[in-house]
Amino acid sequence: MDLKDFRQHAHQLVDWIADYLEDIEKTRIVTEVKPGEVRAQLPHHPPQQGEPFAAIWQDFQSLIFPGMTHWNHPGWFAYFPANHSPPSLLAEMVTAALGAQCMSWQTSPAATELEQVVMAWLQEMLGLPSNFVGCIQDTASSSTLVALLSAREVATQHQFGRQGSSAPEATKMRVYASKEAHSSIDKAVKLAGFGLDHLRKIPTDKDFAMDVEALKAAIERDLAQGLHPTCVVASLGTTSSSAIDPLEAIGKICKQHGIWLHVDAAYAGAAAILPEHQGMLQGIEDADSFVFNPHKWLLTNFDCSAYYVRDVHALLATFQSSPEYLKTAYDPQVVNFRDWGIPLGRRFRALKLWFVLRSYGVEGLQAILRHHIALAQDFAQRLDAHPTLERMAPAPFGLVCFRHRPEGWGPDAPRLDLHNQTLLQQLNQDGHQYLTHTRLDGRFVIRVSIGQRETQQAHIDHLWQTILDALPNLP
Amino acid sequence: MDLKDFRQHAHQLVDWIADYLEDIEKTRIVTEVKPGEVRAQLPHHPPQQGEPFAAIWQDFQSLIFPGMTHWNHPGWFAYFPANHSPPSLLAEMVTAALGAQCMSWQTSPAATELEQVVMAWLQEMLGLPSNFVGCIQDTASSSTLVALLSAREVATQHQFGRQGSSAPEATKMRVYASKEAHSSIDKAVKLAGFGLDHLRKIPTDKDFAMDVEALKAAIERDLAQGLHPTCVVASLGTTSSSAIDPLEAIGKICKQHGIWLHVDAAYAGAAAILPEHQGMLQGIEDADSFVFNPHKWLLTNFDCSAYYVRDVHALLATFQSSPEYLKTAYDPQVVNFRDWGIPLGRRFRALKLWFVLRSYGVEGLQAILRHHIALAQDFAQRLDAHPTLERMAPAPFGLVCFRHRPEGWGPDAPRLDLHNQTLLQQLNQDGHQYLTHTRLDGRFVIRVSIGQRETQQAHIDHLWQTILDALPNLP
Repeated sequence: MDLKDFRQHAHQLVDWIADYLEDIEKTRIVTEVKPGEVRAQLPHHPPQQGEPFAAIWQDFQSLIFPGMTHWNHPGWFAYFPANHSPPSLLAEMVTAALGAQCMSWQTSPAATELEQVVMAWLQEMLGLPSNFVGCIQDTASSSTLVALLSAREVATQHQFGRQGSSAPEATKMRVYASKEAHSSIDKAVKLAGFGLDHLRKIPTDKDFAMDVEALKAAIERDLAQGLHPTCVVASLGTTSSSAIDPLEAIGKICKQHGIWLHVDAAYAGAAAILPEHQGMLQGIEDADSFVFNPHKWLLTNFDCSAYYVRDVHALLATFQSSPEYLKTAYDPQVVNFRDWGIPLGRRFRALKLWFVLRSYGVEGLQAILRHHIALAQDFAQRLDAHPTLERMAPAPFGLVCFRHRPEGWGPDAPRLDLHNQTLLQQLNQDGHQYLTHTRLDGRFVIRVSIGQRETQQAHIDHLWQTILDALPNLP
Repeated sequence: MDLKDFRQHAHQLVDWIADYLEDIEKTRIVTEVKPGEVRAQLPHHPPQQGEPFAAIWQDFQSLIFPGMTHWNHPGWFAYFPANHSPPSLLAEMVTAALGAQCMSWQTSPAATELEQVVMAWLQEMLGLPSNFVGCIQDTASSSTLVALLSAREVATQHQFGRQGSSAPEATKMRVYASKEAHSSIDKAVKLAGFGLDHLRKIPTDKDFAMDVEALKAAIERDLAQGLHPTCVVASLGTTSSSAIDPLEAIGKICKQHGIWLHVDAAYAGAAAILPEHQGMLQGIEDADSFVFNPHKWLLTNFDCSAYYVRDVHALLATFQSSPEYLKTAYDPQVVNFRDWGIPLGRRFRALKLWFVLRSYGVEGLQAILRHHIALAQDFAQRLDAHPTLERMAPAPFGLVCFRHRPEGWGPDAPRLDLHNQTLLQQLNQDGHQYLTHTRLDGRFVIRVSIGQRETQQAHIDHLWQTILDALPNLP
């Protein structure tokens, strides 16, 4: 395929993409393929000779596309949103074409400096302290691991006066997070070598937010035993129910004891661009690190996780590496983002964020988020007004958790979980919407996550109607 | 920007991209911007209102583009190549448009199954053992960290009979790599909590490959002291000089002592698609993990790092996590790639590999790599025939290391490094080519890395001529 062919095929794909997005509601949101079905239709061996693009594209349309789940369908209520947007797609095209490795300033100066600019813009939009500095990571999972590794390194240096935290030093370190914190915290605690059994899962209050008194007690208990409380992870918007840990109170405890405070706002952090939601960040100046994902609710293609730290020296002490073959003449004057995380290679991810922030403007993005939150509030009110549908958690953002509890069934009736699993299956059979579940206090709960860019009132009305239609037929 | 606007702008960008790539040789390969120059031209605050795409695009062209380094310029001799190709760019467009999260089978079945298919194709192309299984990671750095974490976990389970390797168990663990191994090994040893001082840097032979007798001695010394040799990293194609560690001999030692063997073939692994280069993989059946980067020399956009393991259970024991909100009905029957690495979220990266492997076919890719290797051999021969240009290492692939040593200067003449630094600067001033450096045995060496998809004989001839032209004017 030469560039003449590329030009022709790329124009063809642009039309396919625009058609796909225009007609996305005609596509079944979740595929009906069964495990192994796609793979069984593909050759076991790579082709020896090159094939014309027409053949590849034909196979894409007939074999791959029908097996895809459509995350950008406006009936997307599953997990959290993974939005893209037209300007973000344009930027992805340019990023791919430039194909620049943005590991060091020298290897793509404009990419590094644009990343500094858009991270500062986001920082201002969210009202993060001006002494924070940010960079783009791939995911919140990786960012949390980066935070825990930094916390480990700082604690090692403080406690043992040396660098390159070797394993033994971590023996007495302890990490704290609410029992509703994301599974990536458990994973990061394990990977960073703290030992899974050294993660203290702090109980939550009735709204699923961390119980600060319990945190305080756990830390004091550990201190009394000669252990080293090293890191607390506060969640702003948990995955199960978007619960908000009391950041300010947690920050005071961390400050008092010199504990690294990492704030995981992967989903809900985007809502802090709304002045009416910035309250959740009260106390953020005591945090050491903060992460949220523009690739969830801020219309920017995955991957784009915004990671901020208060003390960049802690980050560099953990991740910096400067072998001869990467040294450049400008190193003393510039930021080399390869030293801010795990991977050496980096894509030019700032470009999509720049295209999105400029295309929508702050007010445009605020309007979209407010619209989603209003839809969620409307849905929550319908639940609250219904005699047998139960809202299972506060819904401050776009996520609403509910279940159906028939009249006369107690809150822990044995059949309730199965009853709601069946309800969820029926809602998903529809093909126009997709929802997933969680458990809160051990109870099976249906999550309605409203945040896909194109989701409108009509989609909520449709969801509501399918719920009402399903209820009479449940076991 | 609605979809109608998107369609129009995307068509416009397709033409810009095709023009850019057609005319790339007219573009200066490395920008002349100084640190801070790009940033200084961009607003400090995000726009409140959305802006028309024309304004954004205008700024891209006037402010961002001039500050980029052009990795896909055929005069790219720096670092290693980071190739893309027309079919890869087409796939990136589709991947971005689908915007699917490929963390679990359920969240995009075709993406998971296509990843299984293309990883099996690559496995066959490289002649990797059929009992290996693979997945796509972002970078070799991350893959190496994944390997070291897996090695730590397995060693903990073997030695202490329990899971979730907590820090104390790693105290006595030791890791081994040649002193020429990539800096990502040092970084991964540190991050995985082994402690940087527990990495044994094994001396190399005259060709910069690991000295196996020295490895053996280091392991035996550690065993005699009651320590636990946990992981050896063998490099196939080091970054400084593409040296090839003797895999088979290393594998036998690892097998004998039950040590995890990770093979870092980030750059040179691609060459194993050539039968005449598969010899470097002799003994690979004793490896536990293997990584190479199709995003370097196999025409596939970054990020696309191919990571293979012999025992997937070791990988899963380290990375698997299944919180309620991620559980799906199909979990027992399917592969969930979120459990094969650090990040939870994953892009649909298999698509670009599929487009590339099918567009070029095995033979097409082989022809491109053979062409690059032939160019490198030609360049190496010219060096060898020149009275004062010195080749500094074997050049089995596309990388040739050299320096200039004027007649009468000893091999460690004090001025030699500065002399060659000046030569490198002069070669790079040219604007049509870009080279970087390293040190071998402490000596400053210029690296000529030949592997950009469009690099032809004429570019090598130009490089050669600029070298000859520069020599008379060196200090």
